[in-house]
Amino acid sequence: MEIQNILIAGKLANAMKEQINADAYRQEFRFKPAPEVTVDDLQWADAYVSFEPTANFDFYNLKWVHSFGAGVNPYVYNREWKQDVLLTRTVCSFGSRISQYCLSYYLKDMQEHDYFRAHQNEKKWQPKEPQLINGQKVMVYGTGEIGQEVAKIFSTIGMDVVGVSLSGKQKDYFRDVYAVSTETEELHDADLVINTLPLTDSTEQLFGEEFFTRLTHAVFINVGRGSSIVDDALLRALDDGRIRLAVLDVFREEPLPKGNRLWNHENVLITPHISAVTTVEEAAECFLDTLNTIENNGVLHNKVDVTRGY
Amino acid sequence: MEIQNILIAGKLANAMKEQINADAYRQEFRFKPAPEVTVDDLQWADAYVSFEPTANFDFYNLKWVHSFGAGVNPYVYNREWKQDVLLTRTVCSFGSRISQYCLSYYLKDMQEHDYFRAHQNEKKWQPKEPQLINGQKVMVYGTGEIGQEVAKIFSTIGMDVVGVSLSGKQKDYFRDVYAVSTETEELHDADLVINTLPLTDSTEQLFGEEFFTRLTHAVFINVGRGSSIVDDALLRALDDGRIRLAVLDVFREEPLPKGNRLWNHENVLITPHISAVTTVEEAAECFLDTLNTIENNGVLHNKVDVTRGY
Repeated sequence: MEIQNILIAGKLANAMKEQINADAYRQEFRFKPAPEVTVDDLQWADAYVSFEPTANFDFYNLKWVHSFGAGVNPYVYNREWKQDVLLTRTVCSFGSRISQYCLSYYLKDMQEHDYFRAHQNEKKWQPKEPQLINGQKVMVYGTGEIGQEVAKIFSTIGMDVVGVSLSGKQKDYFRDVYAVSTETEELHDADLVINTLPLTDSTEQLFGEEFFTRLTHAVFINVGRGSSIVDDALLRALDDGRIRLAVLDVFREEPLPKGNRLWNHENVLITPHISAVTTVEEAAECFLDTLNTIENNGVLHNKVDVTRGY
Repeated sequence: MEIQNILIAGKLANAMKEQINADAYRQEFRFKPAPEVTVDDLQWADAYVSFEPTANFDFYNLKWVHSFGAGVNPYVYNREWKQDVLLTRTVCSFGSRISQYCLSYYLKDMQEHDYFRAHQNEKKWQPKEPQLINGQKVMVYGTGEIGQEVAKIFSTIGMDVVGVSLSGKQKDYFRDVYAVSTETEELHDADLVINTLPLTDSTEQLFGEEFFTRLTHAVFINVGRGSSIVDDALLRALDDGRIRLAVLDVFREEPLPKGNRLWNHENVLITPHISAVTTVEEAAECFLDTLNTIENNGVLHNKVDVTRGY
């Protein structure tokens, strides 16, 4: 495919202008924050590069859309897609980032960081035994690039790693992979549940009352999408201890509204959607790699199947 | 070697009495807290099992001493050892325990746990980019069973792992292993330094002024022995930022005295010697495995070279 006019839009536009040496490319570039994007820009472009469509977005002459995020729901969830337009996404280091995020919080809990910090504050020498994670069971929802990287790290350290995906297809680093809703027997003794799933019709509100009642003592980490969770059901599971600790990086509404009960629940840790940050350097590198692959008709590893939504 | 009379002494004595089904063994057992151990007990025993010698300890008829700890300095450091007495130590899960301890604190720092917790307390949504540990450099002092397990986990996650040992012998999972004091060129860009070394004449005060001045920004974790550190030099390195954060589990004097400045230094995290806890179950299992190996003249993986001291 040949690309000539590239519109880089939204909050990374100015940073990308610094990062990309546009003169080195035969393509034309326009770099514009979202409010400055005109219909003329959109009609001019055959490639659109951003986290999300602008308010005035339409396909016009576009051949290719590239998402700066790993999640492409802003482009395809509850929206029409023009079927002959290629959609790609930023993957890069997301697997490492998300697995280090998850590991950091699970180890913090197992190693009793809060207990020891509180005792240090009072200069109290009070030994307590940290828990080894070896042999514990983690359920990983999503077995794509990100889920597999999570599985790789946790299995290397010695956890029993079970996967859950829409298809149930077996993948490396998982002891077993179940199709969604066939995994229920595995949940009662799960020590850790990690959601890495994208937001689609099949994953909206996937984690609701029925799911949470099967857990008995798990830590729950959400690095997928907030809308996959039924918040009230999560809060009930927290209140009655079926979830011992929830570590949440994504929410139905972001920023999380001040009034939301999750903010000050004693067993909830909140981070502001940072588990898979796209650094400007990585975003630029991934975009330019993808452009290069497209120009050379190479194999794209980050192409989105629009009908599946990821 | 044939063992007949086993004296299990010290703080694990009563727990071991519960744990070990003495009737199942052809040996005789005595289980005694340290203050109750008499000269008669010591003269009766051909095996002595404890964290440390009692105050009235002597070798008498002992053939074998087994340490409940991984560090055997209470038995051999600045003490005479009777050369034909076998000394073994508890290893078991120490490699996993210490590597999970180290990983938990380094990831806590890289993932900015404190920053996000403080913002959650104020219901503030303030993104900040966690740092990926991939490509960062960790120096691991000690390349024995524990150091190798640390190297394995950190290299799997993608760090550049350099080892330092007394011999400098190459080992798996290390990019390079240096002999002590030949590694100095590697220190200036080290991101993390982990000490796992036992206490011996060669490691006493190994980490002093000269060592610390070579660092520029490292996190320093001590899970070896407190007496390997010159405390004043460590405090100066903390004060001028050559050490960004020190995570200390072991100290020259334990419990750490209330008056020690380390307790409330803002860049020091203190834990009360728990990174390699011996659980009663593991200690019993390791001791009984060792007994079994000795009785069958098998190969001992946990035999201490008393002249080296580890």
